[in-house]
Amino acid sequence: MICLADLCNLIKGELKGDPGFIVNSVNSLYKAGKDEITFSVKDKIDLEKIEAGALIVTRGSKVVYPNLVIVEEPYQAFAALLNYFFPHRKFCESVDPHAYVDKTAKLGENVTVGMYSYVGEGCIIGEETEIHASVTIYPNVKIGKNCIIYSNVVIREDVEIGDHVIIQPGAVIGADGFGFTRLSNGTPVKIPQKGKVIIGDYCEIGANTCIDRSTIEETVLNEYVKLDNLVQVGHNVRIGRGTAISSQTGISGSATVGENVIMGGQVGVADHVNIADGAMIAGGAGVTGHIKTRGTTVGGRPYQEIHDWRRSHALYRNLPDYIDRIKALENKIKELEHKVNMEEK
Amino acid sequence: MICLADLCNLIKGELKGDPGFIVNSVNSLYKAGKDEITFSVKDKIDLEKIEAGALIVTRGSKVVYPNLVIVEEPYQAFAALLNYFFPHRKFCESVDPHAYVDKTAKLGENVTVGMYSYVGEGCIIGEETEIHASVTIYPNVKIGKNCIIYSNVVIREDVEIGDHVIIQPGAVIGADGFGFTRLSNGTPVKIPQKGKVIIGDYCEIGANTCIDRSTIEETVLNEYVKLDNLVQVGHNVRIGRGTAISSQTGISGSATVGENVIMGGQVGVADHVNIADGAMIAGGAGVTGHIKTRGTTVGGRPYQEIHDWRRSHALYRNLPDYIDRIKALENKIKELEHKVNMEEK
Amino acid sequence: MICLADLCNLIKGELKGDPGFIVNSVNSLYKAGKDEITFSVKDKIDLEKIEAGALIVTRGSKVVYPNLVIVEEPYQAFAALLNYFFPHRKFCESVDPHAYVDKTAKLGENVTVGMYSYVGEGCIIGEETEIHASVTIYPNVKIGKNCIIYSNVVIREDVEIGDHVIIQPGAVIGADGFGFTRLSNGTPVKIPQKGKVIIGDYCEIGANTCIDRSTIEETVLNEYVKLDNLVQVGHNVRIGRGTAISSQTGISGSATVGENVIMGGQVGVADHVNIADGAMIAGGAGVTGHIKTRGTTVGGRPYQEIHDWRRSHALYRNLPDYIDRIKALENKIKELEHKVNMEEK
Repeated sequence: MICLADLCNLIKGELKGDPGFIVNSVNSLYKAGKDEITFSVKDKIDLEKIEAGALIVTRGSKVVYPNLVIVEEPYQAFAALLNYFFPHRKFCESVDPHAYVDKTAKLGENVTVGMYSYVGEGCIIGEETEIHASVTIYPNVKIGKNCIIYSNVVIREDVEIGDHVIIQPGAVIGADGFGFTRLSNGTPVKIPQKGKVIIGDYCEIGANTCIDRSTIEETVLNEYVKLDNLVQVGHNVRIGRGTAISSQTGISGSATVGENVIMGGQVGVADHVNIADGAMIAGGAGVTGHIKTRGTTVGGRPYQEIHDWRRSHALYRNLPDYIDRIKALENKIKELEHKVNMEEK
Repeated sequence: MICLADLCNLIKGELKGDPGFIVNSVNSLYKAGKDEITFSVKDKIDLEKIEAGALIVTRGSKVVYPNLVIVEEPYQAFAALLNYFFPHRKFCESVDPHAYVDKTAKLGENVTVGMYSYVGEGCIIGEETEIHASVTIYPNVKIGKNCIIYSNVVIREDVEIGDHVIIQPGAVIGADGFGFTRLSNGTPVKIPQKGKVIIGDYCEIGANTCIDRSTIEETVLNEYVKLDNLVQVGHNVRIGRGTAISSQTGISGSATVGENVIMGGQVGVADHVNIADGAMIAGGAGVTGHIKTRGTTVGGRPYQEIHDWRRSHALYRNLPDYIDRIKALENKIKELEHKVNMEEK
Repeated sequence: MICLADLCNLIKGELKGDPGFIVNSVNSLYKAGKDEITFSVKDKIDLEKIEAGALIVTRGSKVVYPNLVIVEEPYQAFAALLNYFFPHRKFCESVDPHAYVDKTAKLGENVTVGMYSYVGEGCIIGEETEIHASVTIYPNVKIGKNCIIYSNVVIREDVEIGDHVIIQPGAVIGADGFGFTRLSNGTPVKIPQKGKVIIGDYCEIGANTCIDRSTIEETVLNEYVKLDNLVQVGHNVRIGRGTAISSQTGISGSATVGENVIMGGQVGVADHVNIADGAMIAGGAGVTGHIKTRGTTVGGRPYQEIHDWRRSHALYRNLPDYIDRIKALENKIKELEHKVNMEEK
């Protein structure tokens, strides 16, 4: 619990209300109780339904409320309060006696390793990093400091991971890329995948997401890349700083994705495609060619510029109408031809 | 083995044949041998190819066969016989000495926990529930009775699971939802995900499927929801009773799916969308807006009512023909214009 | 390290250069250093940017380079060199004392089992097969010789796997197929899945890919089938020899895929569909019907023959133009009608 004065200090908010009011938790707008704080980025809210003890709004908001906290960035304030009221719990306090850490591995201060986890030969793990239960870290992996590696994550050999990285359960980092050649009789032959995966600071990798190692070069996620669940990142892909990719999207081999790109879910990016910084890719889009212009928004499969796609699609939905108009035209032309020919005679 | 009289008793079937005939197993229509029983829901079957010792058909069927068992619901009879001839085998008989169960966890009678599995602080597991090998259950998880949790499942903290739930291998329940805000310079900042996931009785979750925890409220699967493999359920989603969702479908954050909805594979549902009870969504559809009418069937990406979509798509396939007709019209118009202008002169 | 003469021997290459030249590694075209070998299948390369000590080209290439190695199949030569310079490292050297192998299981010579892995009752594992850490192998599984099963793989009961098979981390083989029937009130009832999965020699299964067991018959991958990550193979599916399927593709229940079929990513194949040998399915395609002709290439969702689809799609992108032309025609017809009617009077 915290009084509103201290809370405002924590989230750099301006208080219009009782500084001594005690807040016990944070909750969503219509679920927060009398001892809880909540937030709204909208002015149109149903004040009668709100029971919260205090309300956070954006500077400039017209909402009136007994205990009002005005901030510049309500989502950031909300994030800060979630961390305050629901502090992160470590999975365990040390290297569990039922974990295996190879004697050649180097663990920084306060590294924790959960039960049934495996840290291979030559691994280097930075201070404060948490490895939960049943994680497998193959040899020669480097992981930075302050990372959280959830249960059942597999990190294959030679992968390099920066600081403050979070990897959700079941993600697989550094599995073999999908590389084959075929004999003249068609039989596929595996091309060994001996490259590595490099993941920058502050990245987050979703549950059961896969990031493949390359044949010989690197698959790279720069800092602050955020991947949702069940995403596929093919071998040799490069993803720029701050890019966020939603669930079930697949980036094919050797594609290059710029900085601060935003992709919806179930997007497909073809191999060797380049996507410019700041591009926005609508969910389900199929990016089969380069996106060259910074900040372009695209949709559709195959993709088009978003307005073109919306227009094409609207016309597509109206095809039955247009086809009727073609038929009407054909009939009228026949009539006219008939008339004109009659007159000629 | 069982005689046909007892078997009919088991599946509430009416026998036309030898009650003493011994059945040793159940098999598919054209693979069942002389000592096996099989079933068909169709009347058109190739009797010459069938060797089964007995045949189950639906009441009203015209099929004639030496040992015929007539039932109301042949699929349910088939399911019952599969369970009879191939009874479920428990993974293990107790809490394995190489499993970890926190001393504060409460296990009901006959709960089994396989090797290398972890049951955290404060967990409550109902009677007869089976936890297989290498499962990680974070603290404060509640699991009901008679559940089966297959190997490598990860269940994050505070998740609540009902009775008779089956979770296939590798599923991840309660990973962090994909929630970020961005600083003014574009850098993404994680919004902590402190809500929970609630799964009702008789649900089944497919292999490597992910169900995310929400920021602060709940992600909810009501009773009898059936999810196939590799499905993504975003944070704060609610799915109604009896809904079945096929493989690789993704439900974005805060979407609400009604009861007894049926979704094909690779469907995408946009965030905050509501889908009415009994809706049917064709495989690959992109549900970008609300489906308001109960029982609506949709297809396409973006979605349309299924007949509209089929019509639009048929026209789309015939576009080359229609474009030719536009060109033909243009030519005829030119000719006509010419003639008319000549006459005018 | 190896001298060029020996290296040529290894990859059956013809040397134009110094047979005593020492090669220390293999690298990509523009990253290889003076002591490394690289390869190119193209003639158009920027020789000034290449520093490699030796270059492999295809017979017939016009590239001139100090140490040139001419081969018939440069990708195969590259694969051989990757294996030579980066030899496979075994995960461990024996059955780890912290692994569980049931006393009824039969392990061939030199089988290795990593920590925290479980090999159930009645399993048979062929010689030289490697099972890494935290793998769960349910009872009565057969695995051939020289296989590599990466960490966190789950193989359910009764699955049969051939020789030389590689299974990437997190894959789930033999989870229950998605089979339900519904009571008259709509409540879904599970149909038990008691069949098995059979995987042929030289198959490779990607990370977090799922291959479901069938109700009573078999799900079959023939020899040399290559599945990328996050692929779904439904129950009762059959996939022919040498077929390669890219990431996030889903094959619905009872579909039959021919030999040497190539599928892009995010393809969806409907249930009970048959696909002919040698078919090529473009990424994102939706195969909703049979592909009957050997070697057909298709694209689009729903699918069309690839040229038809390209043509339809090109017209689709030009719909705004065609709609304008329809409108222009309508205006002209009106004018003409007016003129003709005036003349009539």
